[in-house]
Amino acid sequence: MKNTVGREIPDWLLQETGKQVFSGAYDDMGKSLKKERDGIESLHAVKGSAPTSKLADSISEVLDRIGLKDGMTVSFHHHMRNGDRVVNLVMETIAQRGMKDIHVAASGLFKCHEPLVKLIEKDVITRITVSTISPGPLAKAITNGKLKHPAVFMSHGGRARAIEAGELHIDAAFISAPCCDAYGNMNGAWGKSACGVLSYAYADAEYADHVIAVTDNLVDFPACPMEISQEKVDHVVKIESIGDPEGISFGPTKPTTDPEHLKIAEMTAQLLERAGYIRDGMSMQTGAGGISIAVAEKTGALMRKKQVKGSFASGGITSYFVQMLKEGLFQALLDVQCFDSAAVESYRTQPRHMAMSASQYANPNTKGCLTEQLDIMILGATEIDMDFNVNVVTGTNGVILSASGGNNDCAAGAKIAVVVTNLIKRGICVLREKVTTVVTPGETIDVLVTEYGIAIHPNRKDLREALKDSGLPIMEIQELKQIGDQEAPEVMEPEFTEKIVGIVEYRDGTIIDVVRKPVQEF
Amino acid sequence: MKNTVGREIPDWLLQETGKQVFSGAYDDMGKSLKKERDGIESLHAVKGSAPTSKLADSISEVLDRIGLKDGMTVSFHHHMRNGDRVVNLVMETIAQRGMKDIHVAASGLFKCHEPLVKLIEKDVITRITVSTISPGPLAKAITNGKLKHPAVFMSHGGRARAIEAGELHIDAAFISAPCCDAYGNMNGAWGKSACGVLSYAYADAEYADHVIAVTDNLVDFPACPMEISQEKVDHVVKIESIGDPEGISFGPTKPTTDPEHLKIAEMTAQLLERAGYIRDGMSMQTGAGGISIAVAEKTGALMRKKQVKGSFASGGITSYFVQMLKEGLFQALLDVQCFDSAAVESYRTQPRHMAMSASQYANPNTKGCLTEQLDIMILGATEIDMDFNVNVVTGTNGVILSASGGNNDCAAGAKIAVVVTNLIKRGICVLREKVTTVVTPGETIDVLVTEYGIAIHPNRKDLREALKDSGLPIMEIQELKQIGDQEAPEVMEPEFTEKIVGIVEYRDGTIIDVVRKPVQEF
Repeated sequence: MKNTVGREIPDWLLQETGKQVFSGAYDDMGKSLKKERDGIESLHAVKGSAPTSKLADSISEVLDRIGLKDGMTVSFHHHMRNGDRVVNLVMETIAQRGMKDIHVAASGLFKCHEPLVKLIEKDVITRITVSTISPGPLAKAITNGKLKHPAVFMSHGGRARAIEAGELHIDAAFISAPCCDAYGNMNGAWGKSACGVLSYAYADAEYADHVIAVTDNLVDFPACPMEISQEKVDHVVKIESIGDPEGISFGPTKPTTDPEHLKIAEMTAQLLERAGYIRDGMSMQTGAGGISIAVAEKTGALMRKKQVKGSFASGGITSYFVQMLKEGLFQALLDVQCFDSAAVESYRTQPRHMAMSASQYANPNTKGCLTEQLDIMILGATEIDMDFNVNVVTGTNGVILSASGGNNDCAAGAKIAVVVTNLIKRGICVLREKVTTVVTPGETIDVLVTEYGIAIHPNRKDLREALKDSGLPIMEIQELKQIGDQEAPEVMEPEFTEKIVGIVEYRDGTIIDVVRKPVQEF
Repeated sequence: MKNTVGREIPDWLLQETGKQVFSGAYDDMGKSLKKERDGIESLHAVKGSAPTSKLADSISEVLDRIGLKDGMTVSFHHHMRNGDRVVNLVMETIAQRGMKDIHVAASGLFKCHEPLVKLIEKDVITRITVSTISPGPLAKAITNGKLKHPAVFMSHGGRARAIEAGELHIDAAFISAPCCDAYGNMNGAWGKSACGVLSYAYADAEYADHVIAVTDNLVDFPACPMEISQEKVDHVVKIESIGDPEGISFGPTKPTTDPEHLKIAEMTAQLLERAGYIRDGMSMQTGAGGISIAVAEKTGALMRKKQVKGSFASGGITSYFVQMLKEGLFQALLDVQCFDSAAVESYRTQPRHMAMSASQYANPNTKGCLTEQLDIMILGATEIDMDFNVNVVTGTNGVILSASGGNNDCAAGAKIAVVVTNLIKRGICVLREKVTTVVTPGETIDVLVTEYGIAIHPNRKDLREALKDSGLPIMEIQELKQIGDQEAPEVMEPEFTEKIVGIVEYRDGTIIDVVRKPVQEF
């Protein structure tokens, strides 16, 4: 068969290879025989004319362009934290169009997203998939069963896994981009709304059908660095403000002054040292709660004293780890979330402060994610039980307080996973026969440190041996429970209806628990 | 159904969601319901034990681990250029195992890969897919029909496209990594064999079934930067040397001293200026040949004189563009290949010298690749014809001299695509009625500049208008051919057999031409 440059291509060759003949430089026929995503037009310029502009004037124009329909899934990252303005803007625009049944797949939602409650009540939003959520009106609305379908709580690694495996299909990813050029190269490092890394958006940018950069800082081509690059991005919208910088910095990165918290942190640091984890080449990650930060601080003090040269700190990065990097206590920071402005500044300027995707961080369905190399993980919990199962999703009264975050990802990988918490919180003992909701299975939890004592998982005979003469208040978990029951004789046993309002997925996509609607309304 | 943490998950929910119940933190059941790649095991550590080591002692051990079989496809990048040692090592190891029918999908092959000829003759290698190849014994062997199946020549963008679309399936990608840690985080910036960017390997790392990092510089975790990250990498092998640094630096980045070449370059620079392309915000890319480099140099001089602030230079980066970045003539370098040590050094240290994937660079099946934004492209050619079709693959005698490279990618996108070449090379006129092999269709070529005159494509009325009073020797292409025929009366019209030894794919995967075996042996 002759092609359009007059070359004869034998038919037998076309049959054998399954290829087509050339039919023009810009002809759509003969495109990849297997499109990655059916029906999604590739963008290309015809000779002599400017490339098709990706710039849109408004969210509304973008929705026209992509043909968003009822029932579709939109996604967002949560790097703007409680200062985010984009989720509400996009969802309000969607609501104004009379659309229904939208699935919001945000990596995180915060108090500032309270306006979504109205949209839930009107069935504009009927599904939510989320990895972290703040206590507040939105979490309460979900608890109360306002959302038409059960919310799905995924871990950070599990969300990346689900997106990459095609289980969480995203029609349109709206990526808040503090620094972005007109072709979609973007980063989170620069601009008035700088938030640091954009790690939770990487999988969305790779796999969503339509990718929309939303920026308040349109820069000349090319944006530098190109954290997410142009060939993944369909549309670019400039708006007045994507986030409130005050809200972006995560609250308490100051160390706790609470004496009980300091006591727990001190015991944890001592435990880590006695068990041999404060050593050259060590790696560490902590949650962002007050006690966790205090553990980081005290561990840093021990490392300085012992002149330890650690390998990496990871996860959500605060000024404490930034300082430790500067001092050479760690050789690198592997960052999936900047928690404060010191972290943002460090990410900009320190080559060894590196962004990692949520997939590299914690996706179990890969050739080896970071959590598997982690030595020390310091975790929070709302509850823990006699099997060391951990709850971070609900309070004992059944109200939703958060989602999985990195809890079960890191516990599974860390060589020592330590839960740090008060035993008694607001008059209730957090150590229960059975947790209200299982998020992290006890087989991955090693130690529980509370103000009243420390329990070590029976599986960890090595730790029990190493710590038996430590002078620390180590006891069996049953003994710790007795103390807790005495100190907080009020036992809360809320009643639940049969209605399922939440599904908790383990990082591998299996269902580890469900959240039922409590009888009590919140 | 009760899961293994004792939680009751209603059967109706399992049916509705299609999910499975939790069956253990490390249990393989309940993995992603859709694996990205069937049968490829994910790597994860069980609590308390060290993560499975990715380190292998030898290429041979890797081949055992991955179970490489006859008929499979292995891939390599060509950033080590003519200093590469890995392709020969891997292929020799494969040959020693008595394997046959291997498909070598290397982004480029050079003179140093002559040992592959023996393997072709023995049917160890029966397929080759390549984007650039040096003249020499390997190219001659392919020309002579030694390879069992026709070689496939893809452009740089077309190769990324084919990999991402699943058309070029890679069983095992061997990625030479000048700097690599034990988990597979790697970069090309550092180490005794530093080569700069690893752009041509990114798609392989994403899509190959098995990804093997081959390094001579194993560093402490984590490698910095993480150009390719660990969760994509299955195995890491340390060998003595992955490349000869002398061979890595591409030959002539010195400017040409040939007076005809300088004349062509001077005319080209003037043409660009008169046509209005030397202006603020301009972008530019050149090939690596002597004339192209001279055009870059003269364009830089014009930019300095006019105090022009360009946007970006792209493609293969040499010391010329590095210098222009330093002077602020360009705001950024978008690099898909470092051509000399100045480029490698710049990539390490200049934030605005950024790596881009081959996909971002030139894959037409994306949301918009870089070549579409390019203003000026300076191209080489072995031949050009009356329709402005360009050949870079074969010489007029039919011998294979190269492969597509970025020629048709950049011509398709650039606002002005200029072929710079002597009209008479080695006594033969390169301007022919019809080129021996079409690689770049004439509809994407705008100007031909030779020592005897300049021809502008009839489609470009705008250029003809802009240049008519330029004083440059502009003429119709027919006139230029007449001059050429007079100056080089020897006309070469080689004879070809019917045997097809090469398939030239356009960047969109269609067949734009075939290469037939000449009667003459090489």
